[in-house]
Amino acid sequence: MNNSQIKKLLNSVKNGSMAVEDALDVLKHLPYENLAFAKVDHHRTIRQGVPEVIYAKGKEINDIAAIAGSMLKKSGQFLITRAAGDVYTKINSLCRQHKKTARFYERSGIIAVGENRKKSGMVAVLCAGTSDIPVAEEAMVTASFLGSRTEMINDVGVAGLHRILDAKKIFSHANVLIVVAGMEGALPSVVGGMTDKPIIAVPTSVGYGTSFSGLTALFSMLNSCVPGIAVMNIDNGFGAGVLAHKINML
Amino acid sequence: MNNSQIKKLLNSVKNGSMAVEDALDVLKHLPYENLAFAKVDHHRTIRQGVPEVIYAKGKEINDIAAIAGSMLKKSGQFLITRAAGDVYTKINSLCRQHKKTARFYERSGIIAVGENRKKSGMVAVLCAGTSDIPVAEEAMVTASFLGSRTEMINDVGVAGLHRILDAKKIFSHANVLIVVAGMEGALPSVVGGMTDKPIIAVPTSVGYGTSFSGLTALFSMLNSCVPGIAVMNIDNGFGAGVLAHKINML
Amino acid sequence: MNNSQIKKLLNSVKNGSMAVEDALDVLKHLPYENLAFAKVDHHRTIRQGVPEVIYAKGKEINDIAAIAGSMLKKSGQFLITRAAGDVYTKINSLCRQHKKTARFYERSGIIAVGENRKKSGMVAVLCAGTSDIPVAEEAMVTASFLGSRTEMINDVGVAGLHRILDAKKIFSHANVLIVVAGMEGALPSVVGGMTDKPIIAVPTSVGYGTSFSGLTALFSMLNSCVPGIAVMNIDNGFGAGVLAHKINML
Amino acid sequence: MNNSQIKKLLNSVKNGSMAVEDALDVLKHLPYENLAFAKVDHHRTIRQGVPEVIYAKGKEINDIAAIAGSMLKKSGQFLITRAAGDVYTKINSLCRQHKKTARFYERSGIIAVGENRKKSGMVAVLCAGTSDIPVAEEAMVTASFLGSRTEMINDVGVAGLHRILDAKKIFSHANVLIVVAGMEGALPSVVGGMTDKPIIAVPTSVGYGTSFSGLTALFSMLNSCVPGIAVMNIDNGFGAGVLAHKINML
Amino acid sequence: MNNSQIKKLLNSVKNGSMAVEDALDVLKHLPYENLAFAKVDHHRTIRQGVPEVIYAKGKEINDIAAIAGSMLKKSGQFLITRAAGDVYTKINSLCRQHKKTARFYERSGIIAVGENRKKSGMVAVLCAGTSDIPVAEEAMVTASFLGSRTEMINDVGVAGLHRILDAKKIFSHANVLIVVAGMEGALPSVVGGMTDKPIIAVPTSVGYGTSFSGLTALFSMLNSCVPGIAVMNIDNGFGAGVLAHKINML
Amino acid sequence: MNNSQIKKLLNSVKNGSMAVEDALDVLKHLPYENLAFAKVDHHRTIRQGVPEVIYAKGKEINDIAAIAGSMLKKSGQFLITRAAGDVYTKINSLCRQHKKTARFYERSGIIAVGENRKKSGMVAVLCAGTSDIPVAEEAMVTASFLGSRTEMINDVGVAGLHRILDAKKIFSHANVLIVVAGMEGALPSVVGGMTDKPIIAVPTSVGYGTSFSGLTALFSMLNSCVPGIAVMNIDNGFGAGVLAHKINML
Amino acid sequence: MNNSQIKKLLNSVKNGSMAVEDALDVLKHLPYENLAFAKVDHHRTIRQGVPEVIYAKGKEINDIAAIAGSMLKKSGQFLITRAAGDVYTKINSLCRQHKKTARFYERSGIIAVGENRKKSGMVAVLCAGTSDIPVAEEAMVTASFLGSRTEMINDVGVAGLHRILDAKKIFSHANVLIVVAGMEGALPSVVGGMTDKPIIAVPTSVGYGTSFSGLTALFSMLNSCVPGIAVMNIDNGFGAGVLAHKINML
Amino acid sequence: MNNSQIKKLLNSVKNGSMAVEDALDVLKHLPYENLAFAKVDHHRTIRQGVPEVIYAKGKEINDIAAIAGSMLKKSGQFLITRAAGDVYTKINSLCRQHKKTARFYERSGIIAVGENRKKSGMVAVLCAGTSDIPVAEEAMVTASFLGSRTEMINDVGVAGLHRILDAKKIFSHANVLIVVAGMEGALPSVVGGMTDKPIIAVPTSVGYGTSFSGLTALFSMLNSCVPGIAVMNIDNGFGAGVLAHKINML
Repeated sequence: MNNSQIKKLLNSVKNGSMAVEDALDVLKHLPYENLAFAKVDHHRTIRQGVPEVIYAKGKEINDIAAIAGSMLKKSGQFLITRAAGDVYTKINSLCRQHKKTARFYERSGIIAVGENRKKSGMVAVLCAGTSDIPVAEEAMVTASFLGSRTEMINDVGVAGLHRILDAKKIFSHANVLIVVAGMEGALPSVVGGMTDKPIIAVPTSVGYGTSFSGLTALFSMLNSCVPGIAVMNIDNGFGAGVLAHKINML
Repeated sequence: MNNSQIKKLLNSVKNGSMAVEDALDVLKHLPYENLAFAKVDHHRTIRQGVPEVIYAKGKEINDIAAIAGSMLKKSGQFLITRAAGDVYTKINSLCRQHKKTARFYERSGIIAVGENRKKSGMVAVLCAGTSDIPVAEEAMVTASFLGSRTEMINDVGVAGLHRILDAKKIFSHANVLIVVAGMEGALPSVVGGMTDKPIIAVPTSVGYGTSFSGLTALFSMLNSCVPGIAVMNIDNGFGAGVLAHKINML
Repeated sequence: MNNSQIKKLLNSVKNGSMAVEDALDVLKHLPYENLAFAKVDHHRTIRQGVPEVIYAKGKEINDIAAIAGSMLKKSGQFLITRAAGDVYTKINSLCRQHKKTARFYERSGIIAVGENRKKSGMVAVLCAGTSDIPVAEEAMVTASFLGSRTEMINDVGVAGLHRILDAKKIFSHANVLIVVAGMEGALPSVVGGMTDKPIIAVPTSVGYGTSFSGLTALFSMLNSCVPGIAVMNIDNGFGAGVLAHKINML
Repeated sequence: MNNSQIKKLLNSVKNGSMAVEDALDVLKHLPYENLAFAKVDHHRTIRQGVPEVIYAKGKEINDIAAIAGSMLKKSGQFLITRAAGDVYTKINSLCRQHKKTARFYERSGIIAVGENRKKSGMVAVLCAGTSDIPVAEEAMVTASFLGSRTEMINDVGVAGLHRILDAKKIFSHANVLIVVAGMEGALPSVVGGMTDKPIIAVPTSVGYGTSFSGLTALFSMLNSCVPGIAVMNIDNGFGAGVLAHKINML
Repeated sequence: MNNSQIKKLLNSVKNGSMAVEDALDVLKHLPYENLAFAKVDHHRTIRQGVPEVIYAKGKEINDIAAIAGSMLKKSGQFLITRAAGDVYTKINSLCRQHKKTARFYERSGIIAVGENRKKSGMVAVLCAGTSDIPVAEEAMVTASFLGSRTEMINDVGVAGLHRILDAKKIFSHANVLIVVAGMEGALPSVVGGMTDKPIIAVPTSVGYGTSFSGLTALFSMLNSCVPGIAVMNIDNGFGAGVLAHKINML
Repeated sequence: MNNSQIKKLLNSVKNGSMAVEDALDVLKHLPYENLAFAKVDHHRTIRQGVPEVIYAKGKEINDIAAIAGSMLKKSGQFLITRAAGDVYTKINSLCRQHKKTARFYERSGIIAVGENRKKSGMVAVLCAGTSDIPVAEEAMVTASFLGSRTEMINDVGVAGLHRILDAKKIFSHANVLIVVAGMEGALPSVVGGMTDKPIIAVPTSVGYGTSFSGLTALFSMLNSCVPGIAVMNIDNGFGAGVLAHKINML
Repeated sequence: MNNSQIKKLLNSVKNGSMAVEDALDVLKHLPYENLAFAKVDHHRTIRQGVPEVIYAKGKEINDIAAIAGSMLKKSGQFLITRAAGDVYTKINSLCRQHKKTARFYERSGIIAVGENRKKSGMVAVLCAGTSDIPVAEEAMVTASFLGSRTEMINDVGVAGLHRILDAKKIFSHANVLIVVAGMEGALPSVVGGMTDKPIIAVPTSVGYGTSFSGLTALFSMLNSCVPGIAVMNIDNGFGAGVLAHKINML
Repeated sequence: MNNSQIKKLLNSVKNGSMAVEDALDVLKHLPYENLAFAKVDHHRTIRQGVPEVIYAKGKEINDIAAIAGSMLKKSGQFLITRAAGDVYTKINSLCRQHKKTARFYERSGIIAVGENRKKSGMVAVLCAGTSDIPVAEEAMVTASFLGSRTEMINDVGVAGLHRILDAKKIFSHANVLIVVAGMEGALPSVVGGMTDKPIIAVPTSVGYGTSFSGLTALFSMLNSCVPGIAVMNIDNGFGAGVLAHKINML
């Protein structure tokens, strides 16, 4: 309920077309209505910035299809993350019924529907090793879906400095950098020494033994000697894509 | 702002004694005012149920005194937890200026001002070893301050079953039991097998080596083979006292 | 052995109808007999408050059926938790032989036999996300089985405050609140700021990476800035249901 | 060495004014010289974006003064973090000798010299509890020092929703939000549900028992149900200030 | 090489039937031979006290059969632990070829060949819950195999004190007690308060959430308030059986 | 209350010298009295096996003196562990008032009063390094106090095998071995390969970095490739002494 | 680009056969080309010291074959680690097309192509138990592939000292020792007391319960009382082989 | 006892100058005598390679002086690590009495007596930040003391790649590299990509929050993407120096 609506109500009370009791009834739920209004507002900002998203892992195909179905009726714009091939088959046929196209990124398991086609700014995604690509792809697809131009630079692990130095030509044009690495997670520090752009570090669960499924990379990134690196949860490419896009849009 | 206040405002608009714009101004902040009202409401429930509390550890005496001073002007009812003797001296003289009495429980370091003198129901506090007494006292004083009758039963560790069996005569009259233990934290399970009353378990940091400053007792309590035991953070006697009182008052 | 029984024995000794040695034999085992008596007592309280329960996970169907069979002959009232569909098929046919009905709650895997039909009081179960529903259902079914009225409120995660504020209308009628959440486990704190009723927090294993299968939610809940929140083991909906019912019945 | 310098060298070789061996000598170190050039470049970006900083904790006063002295001669712009009062006294008199002013922020222990006086954009710093203020202040002073306008909003813990809702009026004008919280670390999730601006979450070591000196807050923030929250190391207000300023300047 | 063998060699040298050089050749490896002798000695004590044992988990059937085959030729006395049914089938037919009998304990997966039939002393094995039985059986079978009389007492969890008190009649005749428990691991403390016999505590991996696959039970047992409880690795029934037998034989 | 006391009471009832009601009064508390009796019984076994003990660390001198005073009046036999020199001074003068002698072992901080002078059997205490001696001494003094003959063998770390082999001559006469080691905690495994006697391993908090204050030694000992090693909590020499004495007395 | 190549270019400029602009074009990328040169250099050292390696675990057969195919065209020398049998079948047929032989080590899953046939120096690989052999084999095959002579000594666990003492005759001829052990990881300390050669310790994930998949062995090795033991990640036989060969070649 | 001694004994037996029984007596202790001999042998290798060392932390000055005194009488060559200034004063005056010089390295707290003056080979010590210097100095002094030439390169953290590239000119002349770093511990990976020499990585406890007193750096180093990096315990500069010298001497 916005100001003009309240004003209209008050005028109705003033001119007697609405009883005080009826007005009271409307007004006493105003906090919640206002918050419901905030909800609508919030939804709008969601459409501008962050897509609706279904985390598919562990969900049954039918449940995913049901949620996707309701989204197809509402905004028609959403991502499904960590999906297997059979989920895509199901969602794709569902989308066709709504005259929509679903795009499937197999390595990361993202299904994208209603991607924002107007891209602006640039988000660079650096990826330490080939095993980290699924997470890097999740980040890149998310940022791209939301409307950022993206570029992915693979296999620039710290053990070969020349590769990172070569990559500088590319990532120096970006507004934000997403740096994805597993094992010792040192790449964000090295890249951080080469740029003054905001860096979003994503640890991956790549490694064995004391990599602790990504914990070592995570803690490494949190302790970077380069100040101001933003860190995400392990394998959270989606979150990195969202944040990178938000920053890119500023 | 409550219903009658809104009604009065609407009537003022109706009879013209208040301009629509002025009423709008008041009403458009209603959500917040309503929430501010909820705040007041919340404060009231706080006065009924949970005391205002200052966690003294690590705070400077003057800061504590300043907060206490403002409380003495407002409700005049509050607890200070984990306080040293010098804090008490300061607070006590401050209370005297306000014609209030501050009571100091030395072992737990609680200072109580404006204790609820009408007690009802009964909360039993069982304490495994003498080193656990500070935490047990914090729980007991808190529940008592809020208005519960309390009884403490010390030194009933699981290594001497007869002591716990003897204690049953006492704790079987309580509505709620608080069970405080460090080291292996087994007491709540044993007591839980002897009563059908709600049990609140408080792990303490008593022990060494793999007691991990209370973590072992905490995990032990969370894994009790007796279903439905409520567990608190390590050494959190205050929280246990609050919960026990809430349950006791139902 | 109660007082009148002991008196009778003493009179038998006095009047010579019982030899001193025989009386000694009876009396020297008295502690155990008394405790055996306590056992009967204990069983009675169990029937009043907590159901007998079989944790099905990892047990073979035949073993579960055997225990269930013995329970059908005794109290005829029990829960089986974390059961798969084939367990239900087996138990259901077993129940029919005893003219009993077994009800199966598929999402949580609870099988309920001999539910208490008379419900009183109200336990509200708040559930942060759809993935947390199995644990929330386990809590709700348990409390309901024992005789509490229950209401479940789904999908009220902290990222959308208006949803929780809307839910207040419902949960403010409850005597106890069970709050179920995974990931960062923040919901109990937020709800705790809106009510003065006892809150039982249940962390779930929902999440990935540093959610540590529920540990992060657990520790978050133990550290709530709202004092007096009761915390359960990870995914322990059953324990929460038992505690909520105990408190509700006070 | 830039292109025109190389061209000049090549022309000298061509016209014989420089011997091939001498040119070789210059060129074979070119990578390092180029990188040395990058170093200068890097220093420039550092002056634009990130201040030189001395982490005072555990360092001796004389060592700190020596480094500060060399900085006073170079850029004259630097921060000293986690400094005690005696460090300030020393640095202040040193600054006066260089006709500079050192400003001391006592709660966070930051000493700022040569602050950027032209402020633009806005960084909001939200702080859950009064004990978190030192970290929040470190973040705010850092961002301000670098040239961001800043606003701090204290004591908006999740247990009192109305306070956060009230704060929305203020933080909705910021480009970036820094959210500082200890204990269960839930504030970033709640704030994240109310804004579409980038959020930088800083866990603090405030709490006891299973707060694990900030680990619980850290993991809570990494697992936020709001996607795209940037997380810093525990108590790392400085890093948050740097990142916030970088984003604010985009 | 034992004393009499050395003496014989020396006599051969003395009477000239052995050359000094040949004797030197034998003797210069004596340290190793002596240690090999110690090996034989060790083997003898092994036969007296500890069985040869094959940990089957993760080994291929053919490898297990090969080792068992060599043992059948040597001592003919050995245990295979954590074996599945197909291992038993293989080993059993192998034993028949050597006119030996292999006994299979299905719950714990132990295969016993050449059990010591003369039993003496008594080892009591207490088991908290039915899920702990596999570990308890491993302990009991091991001790029995080595020559101890054993008795197992099941389902004496701490939540029902009367059951443990009743069990006292049985376990008070034992020389050593093995106490097996998962979840909160409190049983050894409770039993330890009822006996002055040595107690060997075995934590099991039974439980979920913060039972951490037995870690909580392990730490609970290491922190027992009853002094002098011997603790084993998680699920290590075999080790408990060996130690109990060693103590029982003293 | 023992059998003959009950018999006497029954005879008093029989011959009329005691009224039935009076006898009932005595007997109706018999379970507890019996358990109190068990308590006395337990105390007796305690006197035979385990000393009463005060853990001095963190207790105030006056509290320790008070408990010691009551023990001096009861059994006159007790240990105080982890005591500083000033505690000894106080206790010693107290003992003199009771015509008792207190002996102080400075390295381990044990004060022993009323030591059992009749020693039998032998407990060997092996100590890996000189820093582990305080814990080893605590074990040795405890076992000796209770009545075991003891021998300590220092500085037999695994890095010098000859020293352990030399020590075999000494420890092969013991009934039980206590092996004390910090850092990697390998000594129990090496000693376990050289004897068939029961071994009690005590990890110490000696070390730095990943010794984790004794955790690494503890886990090392729990994972020994020698089956049947009894493991104690970190630095728990007292527990090792108690267990060793119990086994030695069998 | 090396010195003589630069010299040639400068001479071309001098004698006019190359335009200054063209030379500039080549030279301005020199840093990167130099680093590319370093890359070539690095590749050469790699050929001398470290093989190219594909970690097969979790990769699809086709991907592995593609990388192997490109390596067959380049150096024709590489290792594939942690490969299953079907990977070998694929790679083997690929190698035959290139007239190369692939050798498969089944226990460790290494496929070796283009092994260095000239061996020198000696690397001894000691292996605590039979379950540790896969890791030991990975270490041995790697060192051998690179050109070291190797010898493996199995089943020399610390529980049987005579076996290690016997092994000394063999390992005393090596330049470097690789010591592989799981469970308590004590073998490197014991071997370290018997030699002054560099020791590389490799913890394995062999064990259960508190072996924590190799963490206990790892920490044990890091805390060895023998100074200067080099420690590898859990199960990292490949790394140990590389380091041993590097040291052996000095 | 060596071969000629045994031969002499056998001849004595042969010619009757020694009785068989007497010879037996000598021979049956041969293993131990031989191992005692090995002890002497071991001491010799110790003198050649590794210094005797006293870890001063937590030891009393008099104890340190006593051990140092005995060493001054034996080899006169030893190191004291982690010593404070007062220890040096004491040791220095003690050395003067023995006409020896003690050298004190204040930052690392090493006291060196009887340093090997003949240096050969080269060990480079790279140090990430100024706070890591104490550990780096401990490594450098140890290697130098044992006879290696050493060079330390400070402040080459990964955030400034040009500094490491510049350092390459220096460290490329070394046989072994010691790389010391705290926080995220990334330096060994970056250096490892620039050299084929053996690298010894030493994590330091420098950092705060999730640096976990060096654990993050340790795990980072164990997970390096550069194969074959040797890792030491946290802050263990001494161990690194010993290993580096051993490798340098090959």
